[in-house]
Amino acid sequence: MKRPHPVSRTVPHIVVVGAGFGGLMVARHLREVDADVTLIDKYNYHTFQPLLYQVATSALTPEEVAHSARGIFHRQKNLRFYMGKVEGVDFAAKELELASGETITYDYLILAAGASTNDFGVPGVKEHAFYLKTIPQALHMRAHIITQFERVDADPKLLEKGALNFVLVGGGPTGVEMSGALVELFTHVLKKDYPNIEVSMAKVILVEMTDRLLGPFHASSRQNALDVLRRRGVDVHLNEAVVKVTPTEVHLKSGEIIPCQTLIWAAGVRGNPLVEALDLELTRGFRIKVNEHLSVPGHPEVFVIGDLAGSVDENGQLLPQVAPVANQGGRYVAELLRRKLHGGPKMTPFRYKDPGIMATIGRAAAVAELPSGLRFRGFTAWLAWLFLHLIYLIGFRNRMSVMLNWMYNYFTYDRSARLIVDVIPDVPAYSQATFVKQEEKLKEPVLRD
Amino acid sequence: MKRPHPVSRTVPHIVVVGAGFGGLMVARHLREVDADVTLIDKYNYHTFQPLLYQVATSALTPEEVAHSARGIFHRQKNLRFYMGKVEGVDFAAKELELASGETITYDYLILAAGASTNDFGVPGVKEHAFYLKTIPQALHMRAHIITQFERVDADPKLLEKGALNFVLVGGGPTGVEMSGALVELFTHVLKKDYPNIEVSMAKVILVEMTDRLLGPFHASSRQNALDVLRRRGVDVHLNEAVVKVTPTEVHLKSGEIIPCQTLIWAAGVRGNPLVEALDLELTRGFRIKVNEHLSVPGHPEVFVIGDLAGSVDENGQLLPQVAPVANQGGRYVAELLRRKLHGGPKMTPFRYKDPGIMATIGRAAAVAELPSGLRFRGFTAWLAWLFLHLIYLIGFRNRMSVMLNWMYNYFTYDRSARLIVDVIPDVPAYSQATFVKQEEKLKEPVLRD
Repeated sequence: MKRPHPVSRTVPHIVVVGAGFGGLMVARHLREVDADVTLIDKYNYHTFQPLLYQVATSALTPEEVAHSARGIFHRQKNLRFYMGKVEGVDFAAKELELASGETITYDYLILAAGASTNDFGVPGVKEHAFYLKTIPQALHMRAHIITQFERVDADPKLLEKGALNFVLVGGGPTGVEMSGALVELFTHVLKKDYPNIEVSMAKVILVEMTDRLLGPFHASSRQNALDVLRRRGVDVHLNEAVVKVTPTEVHLKSGEIIPCQTLIWAAGVRGNPLVEALDLELTRGFRIKVNEHLSVPGHPEVFVIGDLAGSVDENGQLLPQVAPVANQGGRYVAELLRRKLHGGPKMTPFRYKDPGIMATIGRAAAVAELPSGLRFRGFTAWLAWLFLHLIYLIGFRNRMSVMLNWMYNYFTYDRSARLIVDVIPDVPAYSQATFVKQEEKLKEPVLRD
Repeated sequence: MKRPHPVSRTVPHIVVVGAGFGGLMVARHLREVDADVTLIDKYNYHTFQPLLYQVATSALTPEEVAHSARGIFHRQKNLRFYMGKVEGVDFAAKELELASGETITYDYLILAAGASTNDFGVPGVKEHAFYLKTIPQALHMRAHIITQFERVDADPKLLEKGALNFVLVGGGPTGVEMSGALVELFTHVLKKDYPNIEVSMAKVILVEMTDRLLGPFHASSRQNALDVLRRRGVDVHLNEAVVKVTPTEVHLKSGEIIPCQTLIWAAGVRGNPLVEALDLELTRGFRIKVNEHLSVPGHPEVFVIGDLAGSVDENGQLLPQVAPVANQGGRYVAELLRRKLHGGPKMTPFRYKDPGIMATIGRAAAVAELPSGLRFRGFTAWLAWLFLHLIYLIGFRNRMSVMLNWMYNYFTYDRSARLIVDVIPDVPAYSQATFVKQEEKLKEPVLRD
């Protein structure tokens, strides 16, 4: 299968790898372009990553923060979705190699495969840590967290072994959001679920290497985040790092050893492991080096956007790996291709326009900063955070459902999605032979990112 | 751990096995009784089984049809939930044996462990068929159905190999509901998702051994169900049976061989496999024989309710395995124990009061019959079906969410939960050792019911 479109078409074939923010944006903006567009992802859905921590903490369901990729493009006639895992690119032949063994040819290629977690080589992290980049990972974390309480309920002695110590590594937005959401889950919900457990014994420990949480924020926002988290019961360790992880312990740089069975790793990301197969020049963080038009040096028909791109600002600094950069890169490359195929003035270099930054800390607490220097925090910033995330969420039903769930959670202090349903991790189900049962699937090697 | 309650209590210990309809009902009605109540289930949630087919067909989410078992009993002070799988009972020692190796002693035991699928020994069913009794099974089926479409989209030749033939066995309510929901999913949603596939080639084939669908219903209701299903595109085979299943074929009694990679088995149920470990007298269908007070002959302190009980009507006929029987049995046993512990007149024998029967066929189509002989069908019966299922669903949030989802699905013809997220089947996660990753869990033997 060289091209998932009817072969009679003679227009150029644009292939987009990855259905995250960047991939969706570029694919949508190519709808008026006279080209066949193929969007490839290893999942059959788009994941709204900023809300994954709410899936892991039982506040939202996977179906609310994901959206069928095909459903998004029902009305876009020039686009085909293809479920598959890209394992390599033959740039000379202009051909993608998929895990299934199939190949797909392209005229233009846009790599938007995103980032995966970076364990920085810390011993034991790869084997024992929980990550939060995909729906299966979030569901697995949800199942594990509740399971730890079930286990302690059955055997209270496990408490001394650290069964309810939850260590989070990384004081960026994910670490801050997740630790805030965890203490809320424990104090508002699990305390009622487990009357036999002294839930105040459950510890949420946030470890950050530098002397600050939320690095890119203003000092007053950072202090606010630190104060709120500590007041709510998060044990924040600054200037501290994890140096080793074992099945039952987390070893810190200071020498402290925390008995622990749950290490959540939010310390950093790196370009999708796909880059290792590509033989392209990389930047720091395993991102693909791109020129000022977001194309790969020497390959003007190949573009990289989003977390995978080593795109830089006017000072040559790598841009942050956040949704607005991916969205703006997607719009930029779509416009560049439109002009290339339909004619038009040459594009000026890509320039990221910072819309501001925000992070939520927990119930009625967030920090937000506009480029103008205007800063918000507390309830106002939290409402703005909720509102913006609803706006950017894909799909009317998801928006309605998330809004109602948030209202319900806010007024009842409840988290209703606390089911232990564990998932098969990153094995693309479609790669299976005919008529396989779960048992067979379980014997397959696990593909991890 | 002999008893999950504080040891200072000296009241009797009542243990309920199973958090289905019967188990929940008896546990709730024991709230005023001066006893410690322990409710045990291998999942940490109650499953609303009548709506599982809507999870399998992407209409509802697992979180909407399940409810945290602990959450249901937040306010019931004399009840403790315990997550565990019962593997045996020592009736002499009055002790339950759990899969974890732990034992729990009881003064009174109520077995409400429900039914599991009966493959009737048909070769290949156990290995290849999909079942619909649990949340993991429903999610697995959902992932498989969508995966089949992805596979055909990638390789149209699979269509000839029967990749889009879906064979359902059993013309009871589950088979009728599931086949109706499948044709709707295909014609309303997947047709738009897969413009490259001739979705009208997808076949839903319902195989029923007798000459009728919905056996217990009146002839006019049965004819209505048959007419509606056939008009909507279900290929109904009456007087037909499956005699053998292979990885790529379903063999019928008539000699016909259907190329097929999806066999959904709804042909019948049997008592939970737990019965095999109990050495009690069984009825047809592996149900535990009970006397007129629902207790086990020779064990007046052991009761059986719901699908697992071989309870009979006044003519000695086994009662149907439906929710109202479980609910009424639960209320009956709770009242019997209340009188036993607090005093009161002896209970009259258990008598099932039939509230009527109903089955949905699909969008705006259902049949319902009252004991008075009054019959409904079409839109009226369908609205009644929706309304009653909302009423019996556990939890305010679930009710609101399901209602809104149904309204959304009805007006948009959409099914928004069509994610391929495959689950680890019936491995209770909590049985794991400390700090295990998914990879380790995948190596565990699979416990199937």
